[in-house]
Amino acid sequence: MNDVLAIGNALVDVLATVTDEQMDELGIVKNSYELVDAEMADSLYAAMPPAVEISGGAAANTAVGVVSMGGSAAYIGRVYDDQLGGIFAHDLRATGVDFECPLADDGPPTGRALTLITPDANRTFRTYLGAANCLGPDDIDERVVADAEVTYLEGYLWDPPDAKDAFRKAMKLAREAGRRVSLTLSDPFCVQNWGGEFAELLERGQIDILFANEAELLTLYPGTFETAIERIRSTCPLAAITRGEHGAVIVSGSETHEVAAAPVDDVVDTTGAGDLYAAGFLFGLTHGEPLARCGELGSLCAAEVISHVGARPQRSLAQLVASS
Amino acid sequence: MNDVLAIGNALVDVLATVTDEQMDELGIVKNSYELVDAEMADSLYAAMPPAVEISGGAAANTAVGVVSMGGSAAYIGRVYDDQLGGIFAHDLRATGVDFECPLADDGPPTGRALTLITPDANRTFRTYLGAANCLGPDDIDERVVADAEVTYLEGYLWDPPDAKDAFRKAMKLAREAGRRVSLTLSDPFCVQNWGGEFAELLERGQIDILFANEAELLTLYPGTFETAIERIRSTCPLAAITRGEHGAVIVSGSETHEVAAAPVDDVVDTTGAGDLYAAGFLFGLTHGEPLARCGELGSLCAAEVISHVGARPQRSLAQLVASS
Repeated sequence: MNDVLAIGNALVDVLATVTDEQMDELGIVKNSYELVDAEMADSLYAAMPPAVEISGGAAANTAVGVVSMGGSAAYIGRVYDDQLGGIFAHDLRATGVDFECPLADDGPPTGRALTLITPDANRTFRTYLGAANCLGPDDIDERVVADAEVTYLEGYLWDPPDAKDAFRKAMKLAREAGRRVSLTLSDPFCVQNWGGEFAELLERGQIDILFANEAELLTLYPGTFETAIERIRSTCPLAAITRGEHGAVIVSGSETHEVAAAPVDDVVDTTGAGDLYAAGFLFGLTHGEPLARCGELGSLCAAEVISHVGARPQRSLAQLVASS
Repeated sequence: MNDVLAIGNALVDVLATVTDEQMDELGIVKNSYELVDAEMADSLYAAMPPAVEISGGAAANTAVGVVSMGGSAAYIGRVYDDQLGGIFAHDLRATGVDFECPLADDGPPTGRALTLITPDANRTFRTYLGAANCLGPDDIDERVVADAEVTYLEGYLWDPPDAKDAFRKAMKLAREAGRRVSLTLSDPFCVQNWGGEFAELLERGQIDILFANEAELLTLYPGTFETAIERIRSTCPLAAITRGEHGAVIVSGSETHEVAAAPVDDVVDTTGAGDLYAAGFLFGLTHGEPLARCGELGSLCAAEVISHVGARPQRSLAQLVASS
């Protein structure tokens, strides 16, 4: 039995550090997230500074984090059988994540997230989904879902046309197997597009564990942070709402835990902060830790990943937690 | 007119940090350099930890360094028209290096250097040359050679069968145009294989500027460091011999300059140290700096690149030098 099955858009991150002036020249608004087609991806890439390629994909980062914590995780996502697909599959399997999906032999190439890191450590995404755009219900293996304590789904999956059906299928299979379903709202822009449908999932009690940052929650439930927290308390059995350097609030029924952020000497690149927060939290949850401790584990994992470029841990999170 | 034309094996580096135990498990001797075929590259990659992809190629790193110093550089090297080839070309052009070689549309895929970084910051290479294996005399554009003050050639070019002819053609064209020819010995293993031919080039006065580290020089001219230095003084008008943290010795006719290494807080990955030393040195030389200052510039550039993972500078070397 795996602790977590993560399902998401499989992407290789193409990370470049840029100045604010370069962002202006590229005509791109800082901190935004947009899907782009192959042509736009190529033209933006041509205008970008030298980059580094690191396997990414939000839910895949979470799966890697769970394994780095000493847990077990599987991943479902779609890459093409090309060089970037080979890199994605290698990096995932090399960490110990169970990734059995065959590399696609038709359709578009492996997707990539062009990621611009500004001096304030924030990141702006222009994502070409590529093969991830073709994820569908057939990619969801019933056995893999039944074999995971928590099925963790990206809100980003609402973007590709058939991934929504894959998401619903996974959710249904998980429920039928008596497992828990977790959703991350992914990004405020994603919630702007799909918030109505996310709210409906929550209203219908289909999400057991919700992850969101403050901006995402307030896009879902506009108003004050306090009213949004009460709203999520009433629609979801367990929610962890992160607030950057202000820590996180965990609500579950009548319980509320405010957990401070773990200290970071030098925030370099916030890409993956939410993904790794979810990893630490879900590891704790599936290992019987109390909620406040789950939150602490999430904060420790997030702190590691924002201290360097790239959205996957560069050291053993289990060792990091043991020494903290 | 460019300051430098660099010619070498065009490679994407696949960098993974490994423990000494993992090196033992992989059955690989630390600090070694070996060429591998596609099959061996695949099987080693499958056994490697998660990696990061960064454009490399020793001479290409030097070209990038020259541009980062505020100079101008061109590059000749061969990649295939695949995803890694696109990454290589993008990263080179995005830094401002003049790279006009078309991406190959036949032959093997783009080459890669599997690079294992151990905790002592040393690196072990297993290089699959791929498209670089097909570099030949036709790739050497007379106009580009004539248009560069210094043509800088990798010893590594002695590995691919036709690259040696490309090397000789570039050398001849540079001399005919009244330009200078520079050689780096690249690696002690490279000198073990091709030292006889390198020594012959030097004896015949075909190399104007030689770069080597101590181990490479002593493989070329076995004996004491002092006798090797006198030998290179007699065969080459200008030689810069690096000695890691012990700085470098520059010899030219009766001149000898000992230049200290620039201080580095934390040596993370020595990949690219020699490449960037050559970049700083050649920038100084082509901008009329005295030899001791050329050596200082080389040391500053090398110090930047060993302070992080990857063999290309992560900040403007011109700014770094200005603030030093």
